[in-house]
Amino acid sequence: MPDLTVVGLPGSLRRNAYSASLLRAARELAPPGCRIEIADIAAFPVFNQDDEATPPPPVRKLKDRVKAADAVLFSLNEHNYGLSAAEKNVLDWVSRPYPDNSWNGKPAGIVSVSTGMIGGARAQYELRQSMVFLNLFPINRPEVFVPFAAQKFDAEGRLTDEPTRKILAAHLAELARHARVLAGRP
Amino acid sequence: MPDLTVVGLPGSLRRNAYSASLLRAARELAPPGCRIEIADIAAFPVFNQDDEATPPPPVRKLKDRVKAADAVLFSLNEHNYGLSAAEKNVLDWVSRPYPDNSWNGKPAGIVSVSTGMIGGARAQYELRQSMVFLNLFPINRPEVFVPFAAQKFDAEGRLTDEPTRKILAAHLAELARHARVLAGRP
Amino acid sequence: MPDLTVVGLPGSLRRNAYSASLLRAARELAPPGCRIEIADIAAFPVFNQDDEATPPPPVRKLKDRVKAADAVLFSLNEHNYGLSAAEKNVLDWVSRPYPDNSWNGKPAGIVSVSTGMIGGARAQYELRQSMVFLNLFPINRPEVFVPFAAQKFDAEGRLTDEPTRKILAAHLAELARHARVLAGRP
Amino acid sequence: MPDLTVVGLPGSLRRNAYSASLLRAARELAPPGCRIEIADIAAFPVFNQDDEATPPPPVRKLKDRVKAADAVLFSLNEHNYGLSAAEKNVLDWVSRPYPDNSWNGKPAGIVSVSTGMIGGARAQYELRQSMVFLNLFPINRPEVFVPFAAQKFDAEGRLTDEPTRKILAAHLAELARHARVLAGRP
Repeated sequence: MPDLTVVGLPGSLRRNAYSASLLRAARELAPPGCRIEIADIAAFPVFNQDDEATPPPPVRKLKDRVKAADAVLFSLNEHNYGLSAAEKNVLDWVSRPYPDNSWNGKPAGIVSVSTGMIGGARAQYELRQSMVFLNLFPINRPEVFVPFAAQKFDAEGRLTDEPTRKILAAHLAELARHARVLAGRP
Repeated sequence: MPDLTVVGLPGSLRRNAYSASLLRAARELAPPGCRIEIADIAAFPVFNQDDEATPPPPVRKLKDRVKAADAVLFSLNEHNYGLSAAEKNVLDWVSRPYPDNSWNGKPAGIVSVSTGMIGGARAQYELRQSMVFLNLFPINRPEVFVPFAAQKFDAEGRLTDEPTRKILAAHLAELARHARVLAGRP
Repeated sequence: MPDLTVVGLPGSLRRNAYSASLLRAARELAPPGCRIEIADIAAFPVFNQDDEATPPPPVRKLKDRVKAADAVLFSLNEHNYGLSAAEKNVLDWVSRPYPDNSWNGKPAGIVSVSTGMIGGARAQYELRQSMVFLNLFPINRPEVFVPFAAQKFDAEGRLTDEPTRKILAAHLAELARHARVLAGRP
Repeated sequence: MPDLTVVGLPGSLRRNAYSASLLRAARELAPPGCRIEIADIAAFPVFNQDDEATPPPPVRKLKDRVKAADAVLFSLNEHNYGLSAAEKNVLDWVSRPYPDNSWNGKPAGIVSVSTGMIGGARAQYELRQSMVFLNLFPINRPEVFVPFAAQKFDAEGRLTDEPTRKILAAHLAELARHARVLAGRP
């Protein structure tokens, strides 16, 4: 019986996105007592503030799940040296009234993946800047950057690279520890 | 007869968005020989890489306009200490194949507006980071931050604040100068 | 008898620096049980990795004080849109071996001040990026930016602006709360 | 007879710093007509605004050389996810009165090196943010990140990695091109 529920946010709408594969690996590697639920963001329209009081049902559902969760886990793609539009869109919708910023006060993990050498680092620091305003509390270590993704996943999108699996597991263990400390139940 | 065409990119889908009002003010204040055309981004879906080879017509149209333009002008809203999802979405769509990154090599201006005290500065530096990868060449000065927007525009969305009009005009003059220098026709 | 000791780090070597005045105001406004000690960074040489195993006495002393403290408080000046060299220098010296990163695991507050309109915001986000590596745990809210410094302090460098005093006190109260939560003694 | 003089700024005071080795490689690889002069920053004190009107002789000398140069080239180390204190210190001293910001309007190249996997990228984007205020005009491409430095230089500090030499040469060629375009002599 898990005591920690973590909502996992994918960073892309692409079928077979590496960021979604990374979230599935995280779901397997979560520490005892910690369950990761992967959000479905496929049907979100582009955020329009005129509609924020009446968000579409998939947005409303995600807001409720985030609010009920003990922590969140962002799995990022880097697009043009920043967050993908899809990920920023989730960030903005979930932050807005109905009735409030649903991210407020949550502990957060961040992982990222790229086909090139940097592994999404630039997107991670951009997200951290938004987290200040959203009042999310990210962990610091270990940071998980997954560069050269094509060498780390198999054809079915399973994370097969052992060092990456280890550091991902360590990130999740730290997220669980951090969430329990912030909740005052260590 | 203008020798410089500048595509203006609004930062929000909101009706009566201040960033759109700021673009309309820019259109009025453009220097001689420089025409600003405001892009319509209302019908863009969230970027999905699976669809990048066959972008929807409004995306395709904007890509063509950007490619034909001499410069671009971004008018930003800051959402959660970063670019709005709508603006990042435009950035990503226009950057992707069919057949290439349409931003490539363009001179760029950046202005931003907020209802609070910072005037969108955080969104501007985030955009500048993306511009490195997109190979856009932004000007440096004068930076245009418009804080406390409610005091700067009238009920019809007209920019009435004289100091803001002056600095906006100076930004556009510098953008025109920079565009001509980069094009080798000073 | 305080249960929380906080080391306050000034952001400048200038006599009459506003960042030092802001630290003195913080010392007055600290919540019950929390004592702020202001560090002396005047005699630090520029960091040279060749000397990191044998830091000069003022560096060694600050490393010991930081290690013994329950939290740290950075008071920033923004120089050229980033941290001042003096502040980055302190960050780097205190992070290096003899025998380890002395910042490790500390809760942190951040305040900043400028003579212009932005109040040092750009320096704050730069510091937050370094904090990830240094494993510092900053609070999110309320952020304290003090723009137009000349209107907020009197001729003796006393913070006289009442709204700024209130938000500074709220920042310190949150830092104390956060430090107690992270230490498992709420 | 060179028509372009470029001042190269090292990122560290360490003897045998990789950033200095990278600058020496740049000096060899500069394109025809372009000469790179490496600055000596060893004797700079930490910047103190109280002394800015009377900078010490090594600072004054560098300010004069930068002012006379056609472009500048920054070779960065990343310290704690940002610019090294030594590099920020040079940035701040050279920017200050006596009689003015000596960086003003210069074209700029940026290269960076690290012993780890990211190659100094975080320091590069921080520098680019400062460049907006300093009114420097950096090139965009190709970006030069040199990760895993121990595998790229020999025991004498000579850059032996052929792909890195090629991309460094391409960066310098683009810097020379950009400098000539900005100067109106293409």
